[in-house]
Order: sequence, then structure tokens, then C-alpha cells
Amino acid sequence: MSQPSSRRQFLQQVGGGIAVSLAALSANNKHAKPGYNTGGKKLGVALVGLGSYAKNQLAVALEKTSNCYLAAIVTGTPSKADEWSKKYNLDKKNIYNYQNFDSIADNKNVDIVYVVLPNSMHKEFVLRAAKAGKHVMCEKPMATSVQDAIDMVSACRAAGVQLGIGYRMHFEPFTKEIIRMCRQKEIGDVKFIQTNFGFTIGDPTQWRLKKDMAGGGPLMDVGIYCVQAARYVTGEEPVSVTAQYGPVTEPSVFKDVEQSVSWQLEFPGGATVNGFSSYRSNIEQLYVSATKGWLQLSPAYSYGPIKGSSSKGPLQLPVVHHQTVMLEGICDALLTSGTMPAHCNGEEGLRDMKILMAIYEAAASGKKLPLV
Amino acid sequence: MSQPSSRRQFLQQVGGGIAVSLAALSANNKHAKPGYNTGGKKLGVALVGLGSYAKNQLAVALEKTSNCYLAAIVTGTPSKADEWSKKYNLDKKNIYNYQNFDSIADNKNVDIVYVVLPNSMHKEFVLRAAKAGKHVMCEKPMATSVQDAIDMVSACRAAGVQLGIGYRMHFEPFTKEIIRMCRQKEIGDVKFIQTNFGFTIGDPTQWRLKKDMAGGGPLMDVGIYCVQAARYVTGEEPVSVTAQYGPVTEPSVFKDVEQSVSWQLEFPGGATVNGFSSYRSNIEQLYVSATKGWLQLSPAYSYGPIKGSSSKGPLQLPVVHHQTVMLEGICDALLTSGTMPAHCNGEEGLRDMKILMAIYEAAASGKKLPLV
Repeated sequence: MSQPSSRRQFLQQVGGGIAVSLAALSANNKHAKPGYNTGGKKLGVALVGLGSYAKNQLAVALEKTSNCYLAAIVTGTPSKADEWSKKYNLDKKNIYNYQNFDSIADNKNVDIVYVVLPNSMHKEFVLRAAKAGKHVMCEKPMATSVQDAIDMVSACRAAGVQLGIGYRMHFEPFTKEIIRMCRQKEIGDVKFIQTNFGFTIGDPTQWRLKKDMAGGGPLMDVGIYCVQAARYVTGEEPVSVTAQYGPVTEPSVFKDVEQSVSWQLEFPGGATVNGFSSYRSNIEQLYVSATKGWLQLSPAYSYGPIKGSSSKGPLQLPVVHHQTVMLEGICDALLTSGTMPAHCNGEEGLRDMKILMAIYEAAASGKKLPLV
Repeated sequence: MSQPSSRRQFLQQVGGGIAVSLAALSANNKHAKPGYNTGGKKLGVALVGLGSYAKNQLAVALEKTSNCYLAAIVTGTPSKADEWSKKYNLDKKNIYNYQNFDSIADNKNVDIVYVVLPNSMHKEFVLRAAKAGKHVMCEKPMATSVQDAIDMVSACRAAGVQLGIGYRMHFEPFTKEIIRMCRQKEIGDVKFIQTNFGFTIGDPTQWRLKKDMAGGGPLMDVGIYCVQAARYVTGEEPVSVTAQYGPVTEPSVFKDVEQSVSWQLEFPGGATVNGFSSYRSNIEQLYVSATKGWLQLSPAYSYGPIKGSSSKGPLQLPVVHHQTVMLEGICDALLTSGTMPAHCNGEEGLRDMKILMAIYEAAASGKKLPLV
């Protein structure tokens, strides 16, 4: 499928794809798995930015997925272009740099552009991808400001392409199970959520420590998981926020972004959520206290194996490769409904951006801020 | 020992007690345990207030302790006086009411008065016990205001008696072990502590829900454990506090005290502590994130069994009866040094009172407050 000029055209093309014979399906899709009706169609994904996450997670996933594959790469580093083209047998016509990226509009193999660049570059490449008529996946956080996030959502709507944010947890079995338990009130009404995510950041020169590139510190990078969790556990939107920056014990490293930050969200159903993120504490927890019990994930957000338990007993669920199930889930939705799953679309990313920015504003002002 | 007129006199009397013969020790102290050199002396404890904690915990402990015993009771309820005098074979001369309590000064069997009344009554009975020349144990929180706590410490100093607060965790093996691990930096430098303690309170008419009797809500009752933990894990005093009241979802129950409250403490070594206490969430956790590892207790504060683990593996320690080891530890200190252990004396209780009151002030004002 190439350059759908509208969501309708995309749906028609996908509809056509489903009409392939079983033989073709079998031939084209050796790795098809139960549960995903790919109709023999595999969506082509172009990765923009070949850093660690693209290399070690997304490219690995795209070798395992049944309904999508690595169709193209976009990189500013010729040596990476060589390395990837050999490793993944990519033709020269499927290799772009940041200058000629816009010509990807003409590449029929590319259905989805996946932007895996530093946060401050997300907007530019999402807009360029949308203009090229491609669906867009964008890593989290989707932007470095609320206005940029709004512009990205608007641009994709205007272009008639889908925008998704790389929220992999929604496709992860433990996370899906606790969302189900909370939605069905199996442990009663949620009253309190504790969620912390932090790690000890390495190289002090990396872009994650520069505010103009990252938009902020650990809150933007990992605290966003905690904010997401607060929302998917409660199923509600927060109504107010307070926040506090932690002490800066290494001012030479944390001269530009926060070292740590704590925040508190109130939800309309009466739940309180306490969150914390840090670049100097290794911590990763989600704990939910409800009227009839509790549940816990720890590790809760990192790639690997998530572990969970609840007042009803340990959670025993399959361990999956997060990026594989995310990409399969997203492509399944695109192939079957033509739309991004609601829990990871651009609007969802925008909601988080508003909360992240409000946390920073609350921490800076010391005030309790309403959220609307 | 009766009515020591000074700490010196108390020490002399105790010193005399140690000189008893081995035969006397054996005869007097059937339950002597290794590690406690009681010298055959058993301190007599008078319980003031015969509510649930006195009945189900302290009286039970006083049947197990090797160096102290239930010598007297003070109650305003004649039926309780009858019940206890039969159960514990107490002579009438060892039974007091709140009116004739001061005559306990003349009771040679009573060495320690243990005040187990509603919080607002602590000050009166600590002062009266001190005036009667008895050492005093007081349940936590020690008072309902900082000034009352100062008055209590001052009164006991002036009377030459020891004042202790019922901080049982310091005598509990898991807690002692994590304090040791943190003091010896076995998991490196503490960067972040998460500590939550809440439960679903029952009877809506109880004194714990009345501000004039309790001084506050769950922060006073159970949040104090979290504040204590922050201090004993870091070994430092906090330098600033922010706090937030949680939403009131049951205004008919929580018309007088908070339903829940979150707070954040900063410590001079750079640790951030996030705490939460609630009368509507069942939660009990202490999690410490440090540069080289982590440790966790959960349950962390209730009567037992405490469970613990760390990045080095599970903590395997004896399960004890908290009130028994606390009373034995306190009486051992009194018998051997004549002083209350520093981690549970009146000054220690006063430090917590200042922090608790600052948390309320910070929650009410929305401001970050310095602590001195």
C-alpha cells in the first residue's frame, strides 16, 4: 500500500488485501500467529533514527512481527545506513537521510513512518511523514511542548493519516490484565496508586539531559509511564496536580533538567496517585490500593519480564517482547479498522503531554493546579 | 523500686538489684531470656487506659517479658477493673481510677507508668506520672501539639524520670536489620524512600476521627510510622516538607480529620521521601532505593509478621511479638543504664511531632516549609 490520500482509501486498500487467497497468505506470512488476521498483508515500516531503541528493540521486533516488517530506514549517519542495509537486506531505494526523507512519499513499500529521534525532533518528522501521506508512529513523549503535540495531532488529521505513540504497555499481558481487573472492579474501587520509575542515567553528555532536546528530565523519559499508568488504572482523567522537584545533588549533571520529581494527581473518582521519577534512583513500581484488595507490578514498565501480584494471588501471564506485541497490535488495528488503537493514538499522547507540562508548572510554582 | 527522687537514686536502686543471688534470679524470673541481664529485677508497669491496645498487645506482652510485669492498672471503667484484677490476679491496692491515680506515687511496685489513652490525654497523664516520680511510657503520637510534647519532655526532665514513646519498630528484627544495612551503606547511599501506611477505619464515632482527641487523622495514627521510618532509614533529620490532603470522598466520616494525606520530605544527604497515610486505603510499605540496591518491608509497620527483602535477597529473620521485645528492650535499658533508649525517648517523640505538625501546615498552606 502506498500513499493513501485519505483514511477511506487506506481502508479500501486494506479491504482489498484481505481478499487474497489462503495460499498467498501462507506464502507471504510464514510467521502469522493466531489472533491476528493479517489477510496476508504486511505493513512496511520505516524507522527514522537508528539509535539504541530502534536498533535493539524495534528492529528486533520487526523481525518477529507477522503483520509488519522493516521496509526502510532514515538516518543521518552513512555508516549506520551501510550496516543496516546489509543486516536487513535493504535496497538502496529504501534508505533515506534527513534531507531526502520527504521523497518517502513515493515509496510504495512504506505504510508507517516510525519516528525514534530525540524528543525535540519528533514534531518535524511527524509533520513531514504526514505530509508524505504515511501513517506515523512517534516515540514517547510525543513532543517537548503541548503546542507541538497539538500541531502534530492536527497535521495528521489534516493529512488523513493515523498518528500513534509508542505506548507499548497497553499491549503487554500483565498491564492488560491489571487494566481489566480495575475496569471490572475485581479489587473494588481504586483509592490510591503509588507509581515510581527511575534509573541511574549514564553518559552526562546525552541528549536526555539537555532540556532543548528532551523537553525535561526523568519525568519526560520515564515518569510518563507512571502518568499513563495512573490513567489506565483509574480509567479517568486527573482533575488536579501538585509536584515537587527533588534535591539536585549533582548540579554538574543536572544543570538543565530535573534530577528527580515527585507529583500527586487527584482523580474524580476519589483516587490519589503519588508518582516519582528520577535519573538517580533505580526504581520501578506500580501499586494499586483498592477497597477490596491491591495489585502490584514490579518491574512495571521496563522491557522486561514484568512481574505482578495481587491480593488474589500472583499474576501468571506470558512474558512477551513488548515492541513485537505493540507493533502487531497497532498494525492489526490499522489493517482491520484503519485506525490507531485509542489507547495509543495522538490524542492520548496529547493528554499525557498536558499532564507532564502541568507537573512541571506545579513543581516550579509550588501551587496546586487544576487539570482540564 | 519506688518513687526515685532522681535519676541517680534510680540508678543506685537498680545497681542494688543486680547484686541479688543467682538463686533469687532463678526464682524470680522464670522467663529470663538470653541477652537480657535483668539482675533478677522485674520492673512493675502500670497501664493507664485499658483499651484494645493495652488489652490485646501490652498486657499480652507483659505476660511474656522477662524483666517487667503488669503491676497495676488505671481505668475509669469499674467493670474493666474487675475483669483485669481477676485475669491478672491484681490486688485492689494496685487498681486505680483517673481520680486517685496520683496516689500511685506511693506504690512501690510500680516503676513505669504506661499511658495508653487517647492522644489528647497523653500530656495530663504523663505529667501526673512524672509528678508521682515514675518513669513514663507514652503511646504514639506523644501529643496533639508540639507545645504539649515540649511540656511533657520538660516535665519528665524536671522530675528526674525517664520518658519513652511506644516506638516498637526499633526493637523489631526486620526493622533493626534494615537500619543496620542503611547505616553501614550496604546498598549504597539512600536516594529515595517510598513509605505508605493506611487502613480502612471502622466505627465512625471513635476518638481517632475527632480532631480534639486525636490531634489529626491517619497521619497522626499511622503516618507517624512512615515519618519515623524516613528518619531511621536515612539516619538524618529532614530539612523541608511539602504535603497535600487527598480528596474527601466521605465527608460525613471525615468532617474533622483528614481522610488521607501525602507528603514529601527532603533530607540533607539528598534523599527524597514520599509518604502517604489514609483511613481509606489498606496499604503498608517501606521501600528504599539506594545507589547500590534496594530494600523493602511489606508489611512494614503492623504487629506482624513483618516481611522483607532486598536486592541482596530475602530477609530471613525471627518473627517476634513487637510489644514484648519493645518492653524488654526498654526495661533492659532502664535496668542497665537508667535511661530510655535514645531512639524511643521523649526527645525522639518531639522530633516526630514537629514533623507531623509541619506536614499539616504544609498541606493546609500548599507551601514548602523548612524544617529546623
